[in-house]
Amino acid sequence: MNKVVAISRQYGSAGRLIGMKLAEKLGISCYDSSLLDRIAEKTGFDRKFIKESGEYTASGSWLLSALAGRDYNGHSIQDEIWNVQREVIIELAAKESCVVVGRNADYILNGKAKILSVFIHASEEARIQRVVNEYKEVTYNEDPRRRLRQMDKRRRAYCQLYTDVHWGEARFYDVCLDSSKFGIEACVDILTGCYNRL
Amino acid sequence: MNKVVAISRQYGSAGRLIGMKLAEKLGISCYDSSLLDRIAEKTGFDRKFIKESGEYTASGSWLLSALAGRDYNGHSIQDEIWNVQREVIIELAAKESCVVVGRNADYILNGKAKILSVFIHASEEARIQRVVNEYKEVTYNEDPRRRLRQMDKRRRAYCQLYTDVHWGEARFYDVCLDSSKFGIEACVDILTGCYNRL
Repeated sequence: MNKVVAISRQYGSAGRLIGMKLAEKLGISCYDSSLLDRIAEKTGFDRKFIKESGEYTASGSWLLSALAGRDYNGHSIQDEIWNVQREVIIELAAKESCVVVGRNADYILNGKAKILSVFIHASEEARIQRVVNEYKEVTYNEDPRRRLRQMDKRRRAYCQLYTDVHWGEARFYDVCLDSSKFGIEACVDILTGCYNRL
Repeated sequence: MNKVVAISRQYGSAGRLIGMKLAEKLGISCYDSSLLDRIAEKTGFDRKFIKESGEYTASGSWLLSALAGRDYNGHSIQDEIWNVQREVIIELAAKESCVVVGRNADYILNGKAKILSVFIHASEEARIQRVVNEYKEVTYNEDPRRRLRQMDKRRRAYCQLYTDVHWGEARFYDVCLDSSKFGIEACVDILTGCYNRL
């Protein structure tokens, strides 16, 4: 069975960067936005649309999102993306050991790979600094705190809609780390140790 | 500033044992039930009473516990134990680096020591096995699942009553580990690495 590190993370916590560096150190692939191309290919949907719909609900409410955009058979486009995303992740895990950032890979691969499920979080200050200075998705004047709250709320709602995992609750993950406490390199080292114990 | 490892844990997750082994490995003291003697000395209360009242609410409801047993000044015996416990933990942290199991030491020592806040959890099966076979506090016939739920509920309620920490939510801890995933020795190793990075 292949080993898969499934990284969930707070918005702005450097979870993606930690995943990439971990994969590099372990000599395995890291799938994050690269997953999107495969999903886009299979669905014909726009990459940006998948990025949004494959990990975030449109609103912060899982219930509104559960009800929205359903056809007469009860299916939504978001469901279709979830299904394709699921297939793509299962195919990858069957093929190779890898790191998957986001997309609820821990839940999807339960029983199908040796999973190391990880949750990365960070202090609000560190996250604000990251989204303003690195991601450049928001400026200090645009209330970055609100952006953090909104993005996390939408990730949490997505997780609630499609999985049994309570997003961010420790008992649903093998290891959770505060990246602002330890720093990125130390998180990579700690996770390397965890991976080697799988 | 001294370093303090503050371990919170699910009931039956081996958090106490991990704390003891970690302290031994680091060559520092571990305070768990040993704290109780100091608190008993300062308050004159019975040790067993403190064990219960210093970490568990009487019911699973923080609100009922917040209302219960208050005198005309609004104080309860549980508040008194909280205050003494707080003093004892602050005194210890000022004196030496150490591991403290339970008793919300992470919250109490915020800003007063270099804290490594830890949450240990484990699968339900592993916890049941532990409480039945090691703690011998309940038998398989006595519905151990119910016991786990009750004890965690009371710890969570205590935490809610006296701190700002959301018990078991990853973002409130520096590191969270599933002891049934990695095993006790591996958890000790991982935490040693975290401690050395403080």
